[in-house]
Amino acid sequence: MSAPATTDVWEQLRSLGSELTPAQIQATRELLAPHAPRLGPDVEVHRDVAYGPDPRHCMDVFVPAAGTPIDRSRMDVAGNNRSLAEEGWAGFTRAPVLVFVHGGGFVSGDKGTPDAPFYNNVGLWAARSGCIGITMTYRLAPAAPWPAGSEDVGAAVQFLHAASERWGGDPKGIFLMGQSAGAVHVAGYIAEPRLRVVPNGDIAGAMMISGLYDVARADRNPFQAAYYGQDRTRWPEQSTLRKLAETSLPCFYSVSEFDPPDFQRQAAWLVEAHADRLGRWPRLIQLAGHNHLSSVLQIGSAMDTLGPELLRFIHRSLRRSSESCGRA
Amino acid sequence: MSAPATTDVWEQLRSLGSELTPAQIQATRELLAPHAPRLGPDVEVHRDVAYGPDPRHCMDVFVPAAGTPIDRSRMDVAGNNRSLAEEGWAGFTRAPVLVFVHGGGFVSGDKGTPDAPFYNNVGLWAARSGCIGITMTYRLAPAAPWPAGSEDVGAAVQFLHAASERWGGDPKGIFLMGQSAGAVHVAGYIAEPRLRVVPNGDIAGAMMISGLYDVARADRNPFQAAYYGQDRTRWPEQSTLRKLAETSLPCFYSVSEFDPPDFQRQAAWLVEAHADRLGRWPRLIQLAGHNHLSSVLQIGSAMDTLGPELLRFIHRSLRRSSESCGRA
Repeated sequence: MSAPATTDVWEQLRSLGSELTPAQIQATRELLAPHAPRLGPDVEVHRDVAYGPDPRHCMDVFVPAAGTPIDRSRMDVAGNNRSLAEEGWAGFTRAPVLVFVHGGGFVSGDKGTPDAPFYNNVGLWAARSGCIGITMTYRLAPAAPWPAGSEDVGAAVQFLHAASERWGGDPKGIFLMGQSAGAVHVAGYIAEPRLRVVPNGDIAGAMMISGLYDVARADRNPFQAAYYGQDRTRWPEQSTLRKLAETSLPCFYSVSEFDPPDFQRQAAWLVEAHADRLGRWPRLIQLAGHNHLSSVLQIGSAMDTLGPELLRFIHRSLRRSSESCGRA
Repeated sequence: MSAPATTDVWEQLRSLGSELTPAQIQATRELLAPHAPRLGPDVEVHRDVAYGPDPRHCMDVFVPAAGTPIDRSRMDVAGNNRSLAEEGWAGFTRAPVLVFVHGGGFVSGDKGTPDAPFYNNVGLWAARSGCIGITMTYRLAPAAPWPAGSEDVGAAVQFLHAASERWGGDPKGIFLMGQSAGAVHVAGYIAEPRLRVVPNGDIAGAMMISGLYDVARADRNPFQAAYYGQDRTRWPEQSTLRKLAETSLPCFYSVSEFDPPDFQRQAAWLVEAHADRLGRWPRLIQLAGHNHLSSVLQIGSAMDTLGPELLRFIHRSLRRSSESCGRA
């Protein structure tokens, strides 16, 4: 069973446009499923590990099997600082821990079942890149409104601080990654000091893919209403835009070429807030050819244009942290 | 004579910071000069071709020598649409014409002398990538104030419409590329209908590297004053931001990680104007590891992270144009 040529995939992605509809979502998933990486003996998976009391407080853990060499070719991409790719994770004795928080409009979504292509693709890709890969679920709106998603991200971080070492993971090397509503929950965790496990050093960095950061200026829709509620006086505190521009945490953002307008505007405002306050952009990549879903669904595939950037960000963040702390 | 390892170059670029000073400019030039591509028998160069009456109306023309195959590896970068790289310029019988407009704060700068590394590097890279490479000079402020730079870009385009074919270039495949003040002049040409050689079809696309697009919100400094003058009532008409968001011309933008704050803010406003008006970003790349100068000075080197993106943009623009016009 061979996967279709990736040229066709890019053309077909383009033809699906930027409107986030059930048809677009389904077509994107069907298009990318054949390209998803498959489970193999090189990765051990621990399913449904509980990180809290709710049935949705649950994660899958992807661990590189003992003795499996890291596939450094995954990091060897054209672009800046090839040398980082060549170095691998040299100098770090324990693996970074990459925690993926799925999207789904606050009201749906899942880490995926054992035989599903998504988001096992993210966990497998992380493990094959030398990380401990985590895919987590969280409580959903409207039953669990704001800030439940970010609270659950915090609970997962707290759990991993204690549990990472059992899988060879570095509790000081936890990276959060979220897409869409998942990016919102990651941003909410970063922006809210009372949620943070410890004020500094709880996480080593965060990657936010097609997120929303300014609730007041966001499109009004049932998904957002379900999570944030209708009380507009709370929207400023629910927004993370300015707090993200103030954090010293290494952050990476992306927006897709075919993201819906709401997400494109949010990414523009995020950049503007950084440029206005700091005189510089955050690290941000505009993903050519991708729509709202495909950026994450294609991770680990042969056509992957996001994964290598994420690995470079992780590596650079670890190296800087190591340099600034005098850590070996 | 071997060039220094590129790892060191990235580290040194970072150490030069983002403040645009004479010392930073000189250090960046010295750092990248050893990496610049060298002239060889594969490229014919026609120096100081006049495109107008002023001594500054002058261009160097870099033409792939007859029978020299295009080095397609220059286009073979990781990222989206590898297939474009594999295709090369297939389907186009004449070469695209890439016109580079240098920067220099409106009051200085040059295309470079025959033995200088810059900007022969841009011309050589263009020719070795299968384009006709043009490096042009233009009249400088304060003697030639706004919109002289954009008028000169227009004069060069007009000249090339007639002259391109003598070098095998496609007059329907002219791409403008400018950096800093050069990007301003390119933007000004695009934005001002009365400067355009013909309303449509005069150029096939434009690439603007670390430009300024909103005069009213730009930092006030002697360079801008020299070109734009001090009459703030004219700043709105001198600004290109909104007109760029309205054009149907394929445009590519970049901002460098270590661009000064003024340029970072301008790029953010450019993105915001597009997102607000169109619900989408323009094609824009944030160049990791680069400062205001290095983005263009490293073009054609082994570490080049901008050139492949420019070629992909050119190729994609030509292909789309071909598809929409039914051109073979």
